[in-house]
Amino acid sequence: MDFRSKLAAVWQRHDSLLCVGLDPDVARLPPHLRERPDAVLAFCKGIVDATADLACAFKPQIAYFAAAHAEDQLQDLIAYIHARHPAVPVVLDAKRGDIGATAQQYAREAFERYGADALTVNPYMGFDSVEPYLEFSDRGLIVLCRTSNPGGSDLQNLTVEGGRKLYQHVAELVAGKWNVHGQNALVVGATFPEELAEVRAIVGDLPLLVPGIGAQGGDVEATVKAGRTATGVGLMISSSRAILYAGSGEDFAAKARAVALATREEINLYRS
Amino acid sequence: MDFRSKLAAVWQRHDSLLCVGLDPDVARLPPHLRERPDAVLAFCKGIVDATADLACAFKPQIAYFAAAHAEDQLQDLIAYIHARHPAVPVVLDAKRGDIGATAQQYAREAFERYGADALTVNPYMGFDSVEPYLEFSDRGLIVLCRTSNPGGSDLQNLTVEGGRKLYQHVAELVAGKWNVHGQNALVVGATFPEELAEVRAIVGDLPLLVPGIGAQGGDVEATVKAGRTATGVGLMISSSRAILYAGSGEDFAAKARAVALATREEINLYRS
Repeated sequence: MDFRSKLAAVWQRHDSLLCVGLDPDVARLPPHLRERPDAVLAFCKGIVDATADLACAFKPQIAYFAAAHAEDQLQDLIAYIHARHPAVPVVLDAKRGDIGATAQQYAREAFERYGADALTVNPYMGFDSVEPYLEFSDRGLIVLCRTSNPGGSDLQNLTVEGGRKLYQHVAELVAGKWNVHGQNALVVGATFPEELAEVRAIVGDLPLLVPGIGAQGGDVEATVKAGRTATGVGLMISSSRAILYAGSGEDFAAKARAVALATREEINLYRS
Repeated sequence: MDFRSKLAAVWQRHDSLLCVGLDPDVARLPPHLRERPDAVLAFCKGIVDATADLACAFKPQIAYFAAAHAEDQLQDLIAYIHARHPAVPVVLDAKRGDIGATAQQYAREAFERYGADALTVNPYMGFDSVEPYLEFSDRGLIVLCRTSNPGGSDLQNLTVEGGRKLYQHVAELVAGKWNVHGQNALVVGATFPEELAEVRAIVGDLPLLVPGIGAQGGDVEATVKAGRTATGVGLMISSSRAILYAGSGEDFAAKARAVALATREEINLYRS
């Protein structure tokens, strides 16, 4: 099933707009796992099994795996999610961006080697830097638009020709000219709800990946109200650290589930 | 030795502004190497040994290693360059860009795991997305400014507030406010020499990594004249495919050396 269909189905099936971010910082893993050679994988499997029925997506952040020399564990983790929780799409958060010939290699990495359902990418290098991913038309391409970090404003908020902000220009391109096969989506941070609403107005029903709630401080009510579509979907609201590190003992997965459940419920309060 | 000093020394010592890009496409490796489990590493070592005395930098492109499941070979390759050709800095071309907590992981990946002397990064997410790399003040941070691909114009050439282009704004930030420890550099493509000259005028003696000659079609004379500093240095002019795939037989390294030598000499014609 293609990414868009899988996402639409899981929004209903799990009654959830919650995307669980998998950012396994080796320094923060529960002590009883830390000495295992597969510590990163064991930790992530625990989180995945405890939260799958509450999630509309899992989003492994490749930097954490790469820093820990754990690419093989990332591969095993994604294969495990596909096998055990096939309803839940996997978004590989890698924010790739390079010229066409190199982007082809990154596409092979994300979609063939790791088997991700969708990939995050950076728009700075323009259309031919995203084009190679589009050939994988059953996968999702999630382009950075307005990010949740303080420096996000440095470039994205510049006024460009035509009087719009740069992030609005990116939203138009990604939802329009660049959306050749209808597989595109955008990253828009939760920390600026009024801008999230502006992006929603530009892009119609395009899915939005929204980081920034939880540890980054975004407000859930404002985020959902600003970003939902007319039918109360359209969002993957991502939380990573608040769920992953809810506990630090042998009960880390149960603690993570409790936070994931509470977050899903809080999101659902404001969907309709 | 820090990146800036290493680069300044090798520009003189090797009388070269040529950066040799290491983009090992497994489909294009010489047939006699292809079946080896360490094909990527063997190929790159051949190129490195044949061109080290002609180069001011080596630039492995991580996408090619990642797509081939060859991160360990990349690690071994960089260690090999440091051991055998210590004068030549290694620029890891990864174009990373993410929020601070994630950028910390990417910094660990690039500088601790791989031991790169410098890393390419993407400016779209703003200052706090580059800040974690700056803490490694002996390493170089090479920020995308004006890229050599056709889509490079899509965002980078937009006119922003103040009447400048977005890439000029990036050049100012990276050379100014973001250059906290003096370790910054920029990526500016060879395909737009007049814009390269504009960037040089903005950034003083800041090193520029210039892809786009060779397979991408940039003109060497125009590039060198537009980008050189007053003392005829300041550039890492990168060529990858034209050198790597100059030959396809057992003599691939000798063929690569011949092209690298000719390219260095052509560059040197226009330095003064």
